[in-house]
Amino acid sequence: MPRHPQVSPAVAAIPGSVYSSLAGRLAALQAAGEEVFPLHVGDTWMEPPEGCRMEDLTVAEYPGMHRYSSPHGLPALVAALAERTTARTGCRTVPSEILLAAGATGALGAVVGAIVAPGEEVLITAPFWPLVSGIVRSFHGVPVHVPFYREADSPEAALEIVARHRTPATVALYVNTPNNPTGRVLERPIVEALAEWARREGLWILADEVYEDYSWGGPHTWTRPLAPERTFSAHSFSKAYGMAGNRCGWVVGPAAAMRDVRKISTHTFYCAPTAAQIAGLRCLQGPGDAWVATARESYRTVGEAAARRLGVAPPGGSTFLFLDVADRLDERGLGGLLEDCAERGLFVAPGPSFGPFPTAIRLCYTAAPPEVVLRGVEALAEVLGR
Amino acid sequence: MPRHPQVSPAVAAIPGSVYSSLAGRLAALQAAGEEVFPLHVGDTWMEPPEGCRMEDLTVAEYPGMHRYSSPHGLPALVAALAERTTARTGCRTVPSEILLAAGATGALGAVVGAIVAPGEEVLITAPFWPLVSGIVRSFHGVPVHVPFYREADSPEAALEIVARHRTPATVALYVNTPNNPTGRVLERPIVEALAEWARREGLWILADEVYEDYSWGGPHTWTRPLAPERTFSAHSFSKAYGMAGNRCGWVVGPAAAMRDVRKISTHTFYCAPTAAQIAGLRCLQGPGDAWVATARESYRTVGEAAARRLGVAPPGGSTFLFLDVADRLDERGLGGLLEDCAERGLFVAPGPSFGPFPTAIRLCYTAAPPEVVLRGVEALAEVLGR
Repeated sequence: MPRHPQVSPAVAAIPGSVYSSLAGRLAALQAAGEEVFPLHVGDTWMEPPEGCRMEDLTVAEYPGMHRYSSPHGLPALVAALAERTTARTGCRTVPSEILLAAGATGALGAVVGAIVAPGEEVLITAPFWPLVSGIVRSFHGVPVHVPFYREADSPEAALEIVARHRTPATVALYVNTPNNPTGRVLERPIVEALAEWARREGLWILADEVYEDYSWGGPHTWTRPLAPERTFSAHSFSKAYGMAGNRCGWVVGPAAAMRDVRKISTHTFYCAPTAAQIAGLRCLQGPGDAWVATARESYRTVGEAAARRLGVAPPGGSTFLFLDVADRLDERGLGGLLEDCAERGLFVAPGPSFGPFPTAIRLCYTAAPPEVVLRGVEALAEVLGR
Repeated sequence: MPRHPQVSPAVAAIPGSVYSSLAGRLAALQAAGEEVFPLHVGDTWMEPPEGCRMEDLTVAEYPGMHRYSSPHGLPALVAALAERTTARTGCRTVPSEILLAAGATGALGAVVGAIVAPGEEVLITAPFWPLVSGIVRSFHGVPVHVPFYREADSPEAALEIVARHRTPATVALYVNTPNNPTGRVLERPIVEALAEWARREGLWILADEVYEDYSWGGPHTWTRPLAPERTFSAHSFSKAYGMAGNRCGWVVGPAAAMRDVRKISTHTFYCAPTAAQIAGLRCLQGPGDAWVATARESYRTVGEAAARRLGVAPPGGSTFLFLDVADRLDERGLGGLLEDCAERGLFVAPGPSFGPFPTAIRLCYTAAPPEVVLRGVEALAEVLGR
C-alpha cells in the first residue's frame, strides 16, 4: 500500500506539459537571435490596460495589499462582479454565488473537486481546452471525451452526441463557448438544448466562458441564465484583459454548492492573489471596456487575415484557429510537421492535446503582435503548401 | 449516481472557513470605529521589503510580466532557489527538484494530489496548520490526526507516537517545524528519527517549513537533507517576506516525483503568479535578508512579551502562541470565551481548528503592529484572569 517511490495511480493518467518539448527548441532559437513565432500558447501579446498594471498598485493607496484576501475574494470585487453578471447575463447574481480563484483553471478545479467523486464521469465536449481533462483526473474523476464542436450542427445533433456518451456514472457536462481551440461560438438554440438536457438528466454543467468577450461569429450565449440551479460558469481576467500571469478568474454558481466549491479552493490555492484582484477591480471600474473593444477589433482582424491566408473559415471567437493538416502529413506524422514548423521558428500546438485529433494543429493568433503572427502564418502556409 | 444538487461526499468532511463566523463581527466593530485586535489570522502586519512590492515591478523593466510564466516557475527564480537551497541546507538541489506554486498551500496540495490515492492515509502531526487536513481530504485522502508537538519530548517518544497511528493505508507523514500553532521548533534528533522511521516504513515525508526563517528557540532543522529521496519540503515567500497575498511559495522534492507533482499544480492553479515570482526573485537578490533580520527581532520581542504577560513559555518559533484555557471555560464552553474576547475587540482562533484541542486558542502575535498586539494581549489576559 504505502508505495514510495511510486505516486498515485491517477496521476499517471494525466499528461505532462503539452509544450515542454517545444520550450527548449524555442529558447535555443531565441538565444541564436532568430525570429520566432510562439503561437502554441494561448495568451495575448498586449499589456493590460494602463492603470491596471502591477506598477499602478501602491501600498500608499492600498495598505496591506500584499496580505491575504478573504478566500471568497475581496468584498468590493465580489460585489462588482455580482452586479456586472446581473447586468450582462440578465440572471440576478449575488455575492454568495461568486468565488474569485487562481484563474479559471483554479476555479474549474475547485468546482470539479466539489462535485465529482472518484470514478465519476464528466462529459467533455471536444476539441477541448487541454487542461480540463487533467483537472478532472487530478480529482480522481474520469473525463469522457465527446467529439462535438465540429459535429453538433443542430440542437438535435448536439443532444444525440452527448446522450450517446452519458452513462450512469456521468455527473457533469463541460461546455466551452467561444471554444478553444476551434473558435466556434455555439448558437443559442444549441446551448439551450444542452442546458435543458442537463436538467432532464440531473447533471451539473461546467460552462467555460473565458472567451465571452471575444465572440464575433455571433453573439455569446451565457449558459447560467438557462439553468442557474446547476451551472457553474468560469470567467477570467486573463483572457478578457491580458492578465494571464495574474492568476485571477472567477466562477459563478448556485450559492449552496458554492460553499463546497470554496472548501476546495481554500485547500488548493487559498485565495486569488490580492494584487490581481485589485487590478481586476480597477479594470472593471475603469479602462477595461475600452481595452476589450480595442483588443477585439485587433484580434478579429488578425484572425480573419490568418484564416484567409490559410484557406479556412474565419474564426467565430476565442483566439485560435484549429486546422486539419492530414493532407500534408508524411511518414513522420504530426511530429514531422511540427518539426518543419519549428525549423521556420514557428510553434503551434499538436491536435492530440485537444482530444482525439491526431491530424490537427492549433494556432493562437493573439500570442504575438499582429505583424509577427502574420509572418508566422506565412511560414505555416509554406509548410502546408497553401 | 448523478446527483445534482448534491456534491461529492468527500467535500462534506472538509470544514468550511474557520474564521467566517468571526468576520462579520470584526467588520461591524471596525465600522463602528472600535479598536480591534485581529489576531486570529496567521499573517504579518509588515509591508514587504521596498523594491519588492507590486508598485516596483514595471512593464518597462519586465515586458510581458502579466503573461503566464512556465508552470514550473520563472527559470531565473527556479535557479536562484536551487542555489539557495543548496547553500542553506547543504543538500545539493537542482532546478528539476523545485516547483513554484500558489503559496505553500498550492504546493502541498499538488504534492498530496500526486502521492495520495483515494482512501490512503496521511499522518498529520498535531496541533497542525488548519488547512493541511482539508488539503488531504480535497484529494480524497484520509488525514489521521496524531497529537505530537506537546507529547513528543524525545526521539523515542516521537517514534512511539507516529508508529501507533501508522496503518497499512499510510502513505505519508506530515511534519511542521517551526510549528503552527504551538511555536515549537523540533530538535534535530527528533527530525532525524522521524526521517529514518519514514525511510524504514517506506513513507513519503511532507515537511512544512514555511517558518524556517522564524526560529529562535533553537536552530531550524531542514528535513530534506535527512531523506532527500522521499521528502517534499514546502516553503513560502508569504511567511518569509510578508507576501501572503502574492500567493507564491515553492516545494522541493525528488525530481522523478516532481514531474507528477507538476501535473497536479498545472491542473489546480497552472502557474504561480508571474509578478509574485519576480517580486520573490528581487527579494532573494536584494533586501530580503535584511527584512527577515528586522522582522525576526521584532517578532521575537513581541512574542516573548506576549508570552510573559500570559504566563506561558516563550515561543520557540513561527508566529503563534497556543494556549490552553480549560481553567477559564464556563458552561458556554470555548465559544463563550471567544465571545468574551470579541466583546473586547479581540479575535483569536479556536483550538479545534488545529486538531483535537477543544480547550485551546491560538493567537498570532505578528498579525498587527506590536503595540496593537500587546493591547490585544492585555484584553486576553483580562478575559483569562492572568
